[in-house]
Parts: sequence; structure tokens; C-alpha cells
Amino acid sequence: MRLIPRGGLGQIGKNMMLLECGDDIVVIDSGLMFPSEEMLGVDIIIPDMSYLLKNRDRVRGLVITHGHEDHIGAVPHLLQSLNVPVYATKLSARLISMGLKQKGVKVKAQINEVPPGDVVKLGCMSVEFFPVCHSIPDAAGLVIQTPLGTIVHTGDFKLDHNPIIGEPTDLHRLALIGTQQVLLLLSDSTYAELPGYTPSEQTVTESLDRIIVGAQGRVIIATFSSLVARIQQAMDIAAKYKRHVFVTGRSMEGMVKVASETGYLKIPASTLSKYEQVHNLPPDRVVILTTGTQGEPTSALVRMGNGEHSQVRIMPGDTVVMSATPIPGNEALVSKTINKLFRLGADVVYGHQSRVHVHGHGSEEELKTILNLVRPKYFVPVHGEYRHLAKHAKLAEDMGVAGENVFILDNGDVLEIGVNGAKVVGKVPAGDIMANGLITAELDGGMLRDRRLLSRDGVVVVAIVLSRETGKPVGEPQITGRGFVGAGDCNELWSGGQRAVASAIAYSQGAGKGRSAVEASAREALARYFYEKTHRRPVILPIVTEV
Amino acid sequence: MRLIPRGGLGQIGKNMMLLECGDDIVVIDSGLMFPSEEMLGVDIIIPDMSYLLKNRDRVRGLVITHGHEDHIGAVPHLLQSLNVPVYATKLSARLISMGLKQKGVKVKAQINEVPPGDVVKLGCMSVEFFPVCHSIPDAAGLVIQTPLGTIVHTGDFKLDHNPIIGEPTDLHRLALIGTQQVLLLLSDSTYAELPGYTPSEQTVTESLDRIIVGAQGRVIIATFSSLVARIQQAMDIAAKYKRHVFVTGRSMEGMVKVASETGYLKIPASTLSKYEQVHNLPPDRVVILTTGTQGEPTSALVRMGNGEHSQVRIMPGDTVVMSATPIPGNEALVSKTINKLFRLGADVVYGHQSRVHVHGHGSEEELKTILNLVRPKYFVPVHGEYRHLAKHAKLAEDMGVAGENVFILDNGDVLEIGVNGAKVVGKVPAGDIMANGLITAELDGGMLRDRRLLSRDGVVVVAIVLSRETGKPVGEPQITGRGFVGAGDCNELWSGGQRAVASAIAYSQGAGKGRSAVEASAREALARYFYEKTHRRPVILPIVTEV
Repeated sequence: MRLIPRGGLGQIGKNMMLLECGDDIVVIDSGLMFPSEEMLGVDIIIPDMSYLLKNRDRVRGLVITHGHEDHIGAVPHLLQSLNVPVYATKLSARLISMGLKQKGVKVKAQINEVPPGDVVKLGCMSVEFFPVCHSIPDAAGLVIQTPLGTIVHTGDFKLDHNPIIGEPTDLHRLALIGTQQVLLLLSDSTYAELPGYTPSEQTVTESLDRIIVGAQGRVIIATFSSLVARIQQAMDIAAKYKRHVFVTGRSMEGMVKVASETGYLKIPASTLSKYEQVHNLPPDRVVILTTGTQGEPTSALVRMGNGEHSQVRIMPGDTVVMSATPIPGNEALVSKTINKLFRLGADVVYGHQSRVHVHGHGSEEELKTILNLVRPKYFVPVHGEYRHLAKHAKLAEDMGVAGENVFILDNGDVLEIGVNGAKVVGKVPAGDIMANGLITAELDGGMLRDRRLLSRDGVVVVAIVLSRETGKPVGEPQITGRGFVGAGDCNELWSGGQRAVASAIAYSQGAGKGRSAVEASAREALARYFYEKTHRRPVILPIVTEV
Repeated sequence: MRLIPRGGLGQIGKNMMLLECGDDIVVIDSGLMFPSEEMLGVDIIIPDMSYLLKNRDRVRGLVITHGHEDHIGAVPHLLQSLNVPVYATKLSARLISMGLKQKGVKVKAQINEVPPGDVVKLGCMSVEFFPVCHSIPDAAGLVIQTPLGTIVHTGDFKLDHNPIIGEPTDLHRLALIGTQQVLLLLSDSTYAELPGYTPSEQTVTESLDRIIVGAQGRVIIATFSSLVARIQQAMDIAAKYKRHVFVTGRSMEGMVKVASETGYLKIPASTLSKYEQVHNLPPDRVVILTTGTQGEPTSALVRMGNGEHSQVRIMPGDTVVMSATPIPGNEALVSKTINKLFRLGADVVYGHQSRVHVHGHGSEEELKTILNLVRPKYFVPVHGEYRHLAKHAKLAEDMGVAGENVFILDNGDVLEIGVNGAKVVGKVPAGDIMANGLITAELDGGMLRDRRLLSRDGVVVVAIVLSRETGKPVGEPQITGRGFVGAGDCNELWSGGQRAVASAIAYSQGAGKGRSAVEASAREALARYFYEKTHRRPVILPIVTEV
């Protein structure tokens, strides 16, 4: 049996995982990643699927743990190349269908809704979905029976014993499985470095209640659109205090629609209102639910902070609740948004101290609970950066898993488990595939390096015309540029550059060389001239036309 | 009397502050800022000094609170334009002199060392330096006597009652001043949103001791080079356990030299060692002190993580201590560094839980202590983002300062304080001046926008030659580009682009237009063609030569 994790951007095993057994392959999740700051101009990253496509005849199905974009966002890309049956719980299935529609995917997808507890047979493996608690409803863990033994995959999870929506993580099922020798546990490592327990979502209820009851004006609550439990709480508390709720932000509006249609969100009677309705109410009768907790430039909250939201104008007396923590890398954008809201006179409630958010993943003691219940022979920490996996691996050893049976895998590593043991036997392609407009290709280091250079000191172009007959320049070299210097400094630099190029060409022509020599000497002359004048190194593009 | 704060990058009043009284101006600090992520290609930001230069005859002196770069980094720029006398405590004075030398500043600077407690007369104002505790030795707060009353400026401070180096913040002096009606308090707001007290630097001693005594191998401690107290602790504990200390990283080596020469750092006998010496010792006899806690790409720790440090190779058994927290915006780089160190087999100690760092600024209760001791009539929170100032302002009101006497100023705001009250009366230039190579200019939004565009989808250049006689194109349009598509996709796109441009020019020529029409139609044709083919929008630069 072989296990191949596929993450991306350092989140190992996060977005896709392959299980091979005999002639059968089961795919777990197919998610996308958002590019990090240095991946200039990249829209999204999807997992390299070449290994799957090469083995297309063996793929029995795609099993989905939950409906977050980093677990379902690449399903459209996968189905376009390989229309394999998909198995998911109800909400995840709906979100996948929505995604296929939004991306205009033409294939007739086979999406199967699987109720928690059900078992799906996929070749020689069978996959049972069990409920886990996470920051989106209807999340599942997997119990996979294979000829070699039982595998438990937690998916993204935490142990909230009384969640706002749905079932708590099914500890009874895990306890029962744990009494029968489990071969392998794959467990979520995202918060392996946090000690203790992640607090219950119920603790947020208390904070939101206190804030809403105490607010003299409007309360604007921003959170993740997929965090339906938070939306439910906000609506319930608003209803309790007879406030009307206006929902704004495209993804939030979409999720409120899907989650209420599917019955996960129960909107209290006469609470949800249109803007025209809340606009005429006193401020202390209004709650606004919105997105933008990550400082995303086009989100509703950021537009409010910029005074650019078409309906909501922030005013003194407003209370804005940032009911989320910044995802690593977004801190600066979030901070900027908070400052802008304060400047407009709002009181902003944010940060750990305010207790208006809890994580969606389990902390150290929860990971230990799972390890203790499942008692696996082999353990592979998944979903996390290397340091999280290392911490989780150490936890597993502390909990009694033999050190040689704990594997920290890298994306693409092939772990082979047999009757006599397990080891990493090779690697399959697992590069980051970038989607940038219509172009989908492996990340091109050279292209990204060029973009980085362009972004530092801009670009200068010099056009040179050569006579085909004499090999000599015709007319003056023409120079233009972008992003190198401010408008005021151009003219002098351009004319100096023209002179530098002209004399460099004259010299290289004298040496009787051709077109590429002209380009090289123009580039060199300009680079030297500009560095001398500015101590900066723009990208220099010479372009020679022969007439 | 007029007060003009000058910060930059949202840190209001952080880097420079002007006090005007009658005909006299006193400048407090002259610091630089590091650019945020979106300021592509900018090296450093310095405060706009045009208002100072315009009033150069009235400037009596530059008073420095402490030696961090965000308070002294722009001194070389200021002195080059205005060679005003500088007043600073000993370590700050030495660091300023070093900075002038490193930048090759030719002016003969008048740098005066002022012992804490001393008073300097500057026009109608007199400035007394009093010791405050901060994350660099020899930090000072200021008591400024003016004809209108007393001003207290805390500088950057915290209330560590038993600091490792130097005096605690002088509460007696502040208590005494507080009994005489203080006109105005300016106080550090950096950590106004943290409740309670910032723990003493002594708490770090316990953690470092525990880590070093427990480590089987080498202990590599990374911290800020200016955090001399941390360096002192690391050396003392190393000496206690008979470990030798090797110092690496240019800024750390420099600071160890300056701080030990000036007597702030007391290096225990036979502790400091060269690499050749520690290289031959057993790993449990070695401590390495280094920089790189912010994930700076060229720092010693990051080079170790990349396996590129010329001397130190990370090996299993090493313990790396990140004795600092990431400065906002650096989180992703720091995280990447930690992952790399784990991959190389090191155990990495980091984060709040590990108690290996304390902040250099006071938390809420400390700010309240100062407000309570000083009891000012007017209060201006300084040093912080808008949200920190807003929190600090609210604290001041809670502590009894009249709401109408609390001013949240923006950079460049002019607060005029008279016998009958205070109000903001205007604004002076306070833009961010960017230093990028030799060019020092106000941040040019257009240029930064161009760099942003270039960084997203790269650049495509098209060179067109026109006959001066006929106005018709001569030869083929030539196309090249950078950062737009990977090398493999170029050829087809370039030749398609050539055809698109050629036919567009033919058409616009038919309409009998000139050179700029040719450029416009080439740009438009290429933009349309590339968008159709790739859904991307590179910057397009047409360049026409007439022959």
C-alpha cells in the first residue's frame, strides 16, 4: 500500500493525498492554495496532477473531507482532465457543484452525497465518513479499510464537545476503531504548537452577546463566509436583542443562501433584512454581517474602511468586530484595515484578548486525545508546515508510537507500507502548478525572478535600428522605461542614456560584430550609466531592428 | 508653542518630532523606516525635512532619545542638509558617529554626549534627559521646560524595575514633576493594546538558563543586535555553564564591540571565542550568538538555515532559540526560517509560549502608571499606528485627562498650545521620502504603481521603425519581453503579436495618423491579443524609431 501526500506552499499533505492499494487509487481532497507574496502575479496554485493522469485507469474516486477551498478548490481542474466520481457530505457536495458552475466547467460531474456514517466501496478499499468538528459544517474524517488494515484520516478537525452546528467529532467511533489494531493514522497538525485545548465556539457566543448588548450603535461583524456557526451565532444574538441583520459581501451572501437552503443555517424569523430596511432603523437595531477579516482589498469590510462601500458608511458609534485571526502573511493588510476603521470613528474589537474568535483546528491536547483513542501502528502527521509536523511527530512518540513508525513526509514522497514494515520508496512529481489567467504551468523560477527584478527598479527599453547593408546604426537610439524613476527624473536620464548607447555601439561596430553584440554593448553601457547616476539596476531590454 | 510629529508608514510621531517655541525649534529624533511590502524597490524611508530646512535658522538642536535606527537612522541625511548640534546619551552618540562614518558623511558633526540627569539649554527651551528602560541601553526620556510650562516626552520605554543593564525608568523624577502642573505629556503607544505589564527581562534569564543547561548540543541564540541586555544574559549563562560564545553576524559583531568598549556589555572572562576555537570543542560547550530573528535573507541565521553560512552548519542536536518576536510584516519570512532549521534537524525554541523574549515597550498598566505620575494637562499619544494611539487616548481619558485636551495627531499636524487652550492649526509637509540608491525623492505613486503592474504580469516591448518620408513601417515589428510568460510559451506569442501589430499599424496608417497613433494602436492590438490568448495584462511598451 502506498501513501502520497500533496500539499503546496509548505503546507505538507494539505491539498491532496493519494492512497494506492493493489490496482486501485483513492484521491483524498483536491484543493488550491493562494500564492505567497513572492509569487508575483500568480492567481492560485493547484497540485501537480500529472502522476494521477498517468495512472488514470486506476483512480477509483475522489473523496472530500470538507468544503474549504484548500480542500475542494482544485476539483474543477481535476475533473476537467479526469472525470472521476466524487464523494462528499451534503454541504461539501453543494459547494463543489457551485465551484464547477462558477468556473464554467463543462464535464458532467458525478458528485455523490454521502451522509456521515455511510461507507463507500472504492476498489479494494472502503471509505467510511465520520463527523468531525471544524470551522465549516459537515466536515468529515475518514476510516478507510484496506486489505492491509485500517487507516484513519482526521481531515481538518477540532474537539468541540458542543458545537453550534452539527455533531461533535465522533469520539465513540474512534474509540471503537482504536480497540482493533489501526494500521495508520493521518492527523491534522495545523495547531500542533498550541498547548492545551482550542476553546469551544460557545465561548464566542458570550463575547458577541456582551458586545452586541453593550453597543449603542450598529455592530458590524466580519468573519469567514464559510464559518456558518459564527453566522448562526451572530444572527441568533441579533434576534435576541431585536436587531435586524444585513448581509453584505459576495461570498457571505452566497454562503448564507446555500447554508440556509441546505438547513445548516437557521435564520431566525424576520431578522434578515435588505439594506433599504436597515438603513431606516436606529443604529442600535442593526447588525451587519460581512467579509474582509483578512484585509482583502476588494472585500466589503476593506471597502467600508476606504469609504468606498456602495451602501455602508462607517460612522462614529459603530462597533466593528473582527471575528477571525489573520492568516499568516495577511497581518499587515489586516492591521491597515483596523487603523482605517478607527480613523473613521468606529470602535474595533479584534485580537486574542477580545475572545471573538476560536480556531478551527485542534491544539496539542486534542491531538493527543486522537492519538490515544486511535493507537495506530504507523503515524503520519499531515496538514501543516514542517515545524508543525515535527511537533506532532514528537507528540506521537511521546504517546507511545514507535519512533521508526512515525514518518514526516514531504509533498510527493511515496510511503510504502507492507506487512514487514514501512518506508519511503521514492518520489512522484509534486511541483506547484500556477494558474495565472489562462496559463496553467509549473512555477517558472526564471519568470518569477524576472518579475521580482522588474518590481525592484523597473525596466528601461532601448530600440536600435541597424542598416542591413552597412551594419551601422540608422538614426538615434530610442529610450523609454517604466517604474525606474519618477516622471521628473526621466528626461535627463534618457538623453544621457542615448549618448551612452550611441557611443558604445559606435565602438562595438568598429570591432565588426553583429546584432547580438550591439544588444550586449547597449545593455552594458546603459547598466553602467544608470548605476553611476542612480545606484540602481533596472532591467534593461535592448531591441534591435534591421532595415 | 507648536508641536509637529513626524512618523511615517503609519507609525505616527515615531521618527521625528518638532517643538517650536517663539523663535526656537528643537528636533527630537531623526529616524528611518523600512519600506512595507508594497513599496517595491524602496530601500529606506526618511522623514520629509523640507519644513525644517525652510526654517533652518531657527533650529537650535537635535535631541536623541535612544540609538535604534527608527530614531537615529536619518541623522546622516539631516546633518548633510543642516549641520545642527546633536545631543544624545553615550551609546546613542557612538551609534550616530558609526552611522555617519558608514554612510561616508563628510560634514563635521557636533555630537554632544549628555549624561542622564543633565540639562541642555536650547533657545528658550531646556531639555533634561532622564533614564528610561527600553530594549537598548542608555535610552532617555525628556523633560522639557518651556516658557509655557513643562513637557514630558517618554521616548520608547517600559517599566522594568530590575533591568539587566542600566537604570530602571526614573519614576521618582516623574513623580516629582507630576506634583508641579505638567503642561503636556507625549507617551509611547506601541503596546497600548496589550493589557497588564510587560514582564521583566529577568524572566528571559530563567528560560535561557533552563534551555542552555538542558541542551545536549550547541545552543544558537538569535536576537536583535541592539538588545545588549539579551547578549549580556546569554554570555553570563554561557559562562556559568562553561560554554564558549562565538558571535556571528555583522551587526551583532559590531554591537558587541561598541557595547563592550563603552562598558555597557561586560564580557565574562575567557568566554568570547573565535570560530576556530569553538569548532574544536564538544557541542555542549558552545553557544553561538547571532542575528536573523526577522528572517532577513542575508542574516547569519537565515544563511545557516539555507546551509550557506561560511562557518556554522546546523546539525541534529543543535538548539536554536529565536529570542525575539516577528515585527509585523515579517511573520512569513520568520516562519520559513524556522521550518528550514527544523528540517536540518535542529530543535527550534520560538514563540510566546517559550518565554525567550519580552517586549521593549510598556503595556497598558505601565502607560497608566506614567499618566498617573505625570498628570498632564494635555496629552498626545505618540509612536504607534492609529489604533494604538486611539487606545492610548482612551486610557488617558479614563485616567482623568479632559477629553478635549487629548489630541491624536497625524504626521505633519501642527498642534498649537497657548495659554487659552490647544488646537490643531494646520499641517506642514510630512510625506514619506524614499531613498532608493542615490535617488532621494518623495514617494511617487505612479512609479510604484508601474512597478506593481510590472511585477504582476511582466512587460512586453514592441519596436517599430517608420520611414520619415512615407510614414510607413519599415521592416517587421520586433517583440521581446520579460516576466510575462515562461520561456516555452514565448515564441508563439511573439509571432502572433507581430502579426497583430503589423495589421493594426497598416490600418492606423491608412487613417493617415502619426507616430503617437502608431504607438497607441500597437499597444491596443497587443493588449487585446495577449489578453485573448492568456487572460493576462502585461505592461506594453511600444517604441517607435523614425528613419
